[in-house]
Amino acid sequence: MGNIPGFPLLLLLLSASLLITPGVQGGKILVFPVDGSHWVNMNLLIQSLHARGHEVTVVRTATSWYIKENAPHYHSITVTLPEAIILEEQDFFVTFLVKMLAIQREGATLIGFVKFYWEILGTLSKIHEQASRLGVEIFENKTLMQSIRDTQFDVVLLDPGLPVGVVVAHELKLPTIFNVRWITSGEGHFVVAPSPTSYVPMSGHAVSDKMTFVQRVKNLLHYVLNTCIDRFIVSSHYDRLVNRYFGPDVNFYHLLQGADIWLMRVDFVFEFPRPTMPNIVYIGGFQCKPSEPLSSELEEFVQSSGEHGFILMSLGTLVKGLPLDITSEIAAAFAQIPQKVIWRHVGEHPNNLGNNTMLVKWMPQNDLLGHPKIKAFVAHGGTNGVYESMYHGVPIIGIPLLFDQFENILRLEARGAAKMVDVTKLNQQNFLETLQDIIHNPSYRNNMKRLSDLHRDKPMHPLDTAVYWTEFVIRNKGASHLRTDSYKMRWYAYYSVDVICFLLAVLLLVMGVVVASIQFLCFRLCRRRKPKQE
Amino acid sequence: MGNIPGFPLLLLLLSASLLITPGVQGGKILVFPVDGSHWVNMNLLIQSLHARGHEVTVVRTATSWYIKENAPHYHSITVTLPEAIILEEQDFFVTFLVKMLAIQREGATLIGFVKFYWEILGTLSKIHEQASRLGVEIFENKTLMQSIRDTQFDVVLLDPGLPVGVVVAHELKLPTIFNVRWITSGEGHFVVAPSPTSYVPMSGHAVSDKMTFVQRVKNLLHYVLNTCIDRFIVSSHYDRLVNRYFGPDVNFYHLLQGADIWLMRVDFVFEFPRPTMPNIVYIGGFQCKPSEPLSSELEEFVQSSGEHGFILMSLGTLVKGLPLDITSEIAAAFAQIPQKVIWRHVGEHPNNLGNNTMLVKWMPQNDLLGHPKIKAFVAHGGTNGVYESMYHGVPIIGIPLLFDQFENILRLEARGAAKMVDVTKLNQQNFLETLQDIIHNPSYRNNMKRLSDLHRDKPMHPLDTAVYWTEFVIRNKGASHLRTDSYKMRWYAYYSVDVICFLLAVLLLVMGVVVASIQFLCFRLCRRRKPKQE
Repeated sequence: MGNIPGFPLLLLLLSASLLITPGVQGGKILVFPVDGSHWVNMNLLIQSLHARGHEVTVVRTATSWYIKENAPHYHSITVTLPEAIILEEQDFFVTFLVKMLAIQREGATLIGFVKFYWEILGTLSKIHEQASRLGVEIFENKTLMQSIRDTQFDVVLLDPGLPVGVVVAHELKLPTIFNVRWITSGEGHFVVAPSPTSYVPMSGHAVSDKMTFVQRVKNLLHYVLNTCIDRFIVSSHYDRLVNRYFGPDVNFYHLLQGADIWLMRVDFVFEFPRPTMPNIVYIGGFQCKPSEPLSSELEEFVQSSGEHGFILMSLGTLVKGLPLDITSEIAAAFAQIPQKVIWRHVGEHPNNLGNNTMLVKWMPQNDLLGHPKIKAFVAHGGTNGVYESMYHGVPIIGIPLLFDQFENILRLEARGAAKMVDVTKLNQQNFLETLQDIIHNPSYRNNMKRLSDLHRDKPMHPLDTAVYWTEFVIRNKGASHLRTDSYKMRWYAYYSVDVICFLLAVLLLVMGVVVASIQFLCFRLCRRRKPKQE
Repeated sequence: MGNIPGFPLLLLLLSASLLITPGVQGGKILVFPVDGSHWVNMNLLIQSLHARGHEVTVVRTATSWYIKENAPHYHSITVTLPEAIILEEQDFFVTFLVKMLAIQREGATLIGFVKFYWEILGTLSKIHEQASRLGVEIFENKTLMQSIRDTQFDVVLLDPGLPVGVVVAHELKLPTIFNVRWITSGEGHFVVAPSPTSYVPMSGHAVSDKMTFVQRVKNLLHYVLNTCIDRFIVSSHYDRLVNRYFGPDVNFYHLLQGADIWLMRVDFVFEFPRPTMPNIVYIGGFQCKPSEPLSSELEEFVQSSGEHGFILMSLGTLVKGLPLDITSEIAAAFAQIPQKVIWRHVGEHPNNLGNNTMLVKWMPQNDLLGHPKIKAFVAHGGTNGVYESMYHGVPIIGIPLLFDQFENILRLEARGAAKMVDVTKLNQQNFLETLQDIIHNPSYRNNMKRLSDLHRDKPMHPLDTAVYWTEFVIRNKGASHLRTDSYKMRWYAYYSVDVICFLLAVLLLVMGVVVASIQFLCFRLCRRRKPKQE
């Protein structure tokens, strides 16, 4: 499904103005978030930091959708960008999804497919160009820069999906903390930890850590592709930014790799075991919390399911992108089961809905997932939903649509806690079979319950862990002792290629000398003997 | 200083008998410790586990020095081995040290040096042969095995310096926890985590993580040497044991790599940053605790130092191995400083002791290191002492003598918190200079204070962390989700050699086909043209 997992949400840009509101007490944290679903996570962390007495300042653009200018728990710096490139995120993704589905279902031509991807890569490039433009706006605005300097921030906290914050942090000589899963165009680990392609599945390649030979070949090709996209399409924009303000001696990639702490939004109940680094802190599921009682209307509906319980369905914000013929197949399958169904649905209603199915525009997902009567969760496989379902021990029927959703569902499928349905081949029959398998085969529920137990079995709640390490960086002015500098080595030194070549040369030389000496001795012996024989 | 860091303490062996005392409540933990200084650490962990209500059973040999048969906090299984190989550990190491010093100081011949090391490797082989023999004794004793099975242990906790416990755990199908820094003949990380020789210093090679080209060459050679010693001298004994009881399909090294949790006795305040794995838990300094008041006699001596404060000196258990001419040089230097000195000393007293120097056979090291009047610690660089000094923020004058002591001191020296003295070149003059530098240059103390702050800045005390993860394994019957199975891959698959060869072959084939096609086309074109020209 391509190489743009967790596709950072698009920046909206107009002509320039700004606002900064400095404040009080505790640490001072400058935040560079990514808009959209990423902001949900970041905002949660900011709320906790604010509650601990820290002063948080968020950098936003004038046209941010989710990131409000005024909020009780943070100040904001609003940057208005000079060129208008309005990209309506939701519509963009919906169009993207519809095109993807069409290509996959109708067997479009290879050329069409390549052309379509080329378009996507162009958009990706444009997004990062605009994000790097945010850096220019900040650096060029002397009043803003002075105001930021005067505030004397302790740390820069950023979502490196759009990593312009590391460049600003370098200018301010401040330590950096990443709230991260996806970085530029790949998974965060690949930038900072050894990632052998033989057992670490690449982003965009939905396989487990146990691969066949063919999967390993594909995995290596994915690695090469991801690296090329990252270096040539994404990083180049930030390289130019860094080059403009710091000269050729500073390397953007090194700034990225030099972050003090990586708050990684996964844990190893979800992620496959893989090498890691001392400065990676796992905070997967930091948004999870116990459920609260439902509204009386919802509770009544749920209770009416009796012993059969209920099913929850939500395909995230893109749900209105599903064609009616697919939602009709799903509705028909739902109509045949004795369970009640709560379906978060936006867009045209299928006309074959069963009496057991309630469509809602919004629902208290966490409270429903924590309800004792829930039997299964039909989900697209976004990280937040997956973690909430895991936290509450609810097995998943996965209908992944885009980006990392395939990999996310696969991680649960590999643990026997989910089953994936291919949306391009979905019909009433196979969807019903999958539903009934998940509902009636207790192994899915038991496996998800085990994941839930393991996920909850931590010395500290992941959100507290995130706050702890943020404060650690503030207290200790960084965490350089946890961070390797090895990324600064030349690749041939890092991989010991120079050392191996040197040792091979020495070996060859020694062998050469030995062979030459033997030849010389033989020659001398032969010459001595010959005269005697004559 | 060779490849036998943390040289596991020698097993004492006679003819067979055993004893097992089963018990109550909580988890049931079967422990395979290593005797000597390693036992001090393990015993501390066992005490905490016992205090949490777990039942601990320790496997010991009939002639253990430190591991008592009866203790209030554990039961024991005493195995008496059939063949008598009494190796007096202390004397052995003292003799070893004296020989080493003589070789280094008097410039002995290379052949003498090689011969001496050969002897050492022979002894290492013998120790592991005897340790693997412990496995045979346990497996052959049907009553003991039945008794162990009947106890229904939850987990095997072992110090993999002598790793026979993993073989027993495999037979019992139990999860394993390592209390580890050294494993068979190397550092634990090298067995379980990627360890690029370009920035991860090998055991036996006292360099930092920033190496010159020559150091990187040496580091790679150390890696090769360590691997050879491990595979051919150490593991071969356990391979035979595993082969005898489980057949050729079970690989001893895989048992070692398959441990559920590695409680690693370092942290990254001490260790250089390096790749790690999700199942490695860092418990460095888990023995550290606040100091308690001194005896009135010691307090009086310490207070008499006035504003100058006092120096502590201890070279561990091997102190009596230092020749009198060296201890006399040290004593002479001490006599020239205004500070008081407390020197833990066994053996012949130097006759030039100053009035400020008190020799003691034993001292409350932790309480003295935590005393406000302490100025510096003269130490050999064993891990326990180094961590205690770091915990209390006391700078170190390191006189490393054997094994990992060089690397340990180097780790503090690289952080500007210690200074190393070469014992083979030590004289009154250079020792005094080093002393005065450490006492009067505040940077050493400040740097050590910073390390102390960083070391203490953890969400949980390392001992509690160790207990938590032990209980985690008991609760969850292992921690397989944190453990990679990649070690079971063939080396060429792990390093993607097969995939790269395949892709190169495909590339060559494609290029071949292209070149052949072009040649063929040219040939056809030429043939068509020629007739026309004719």
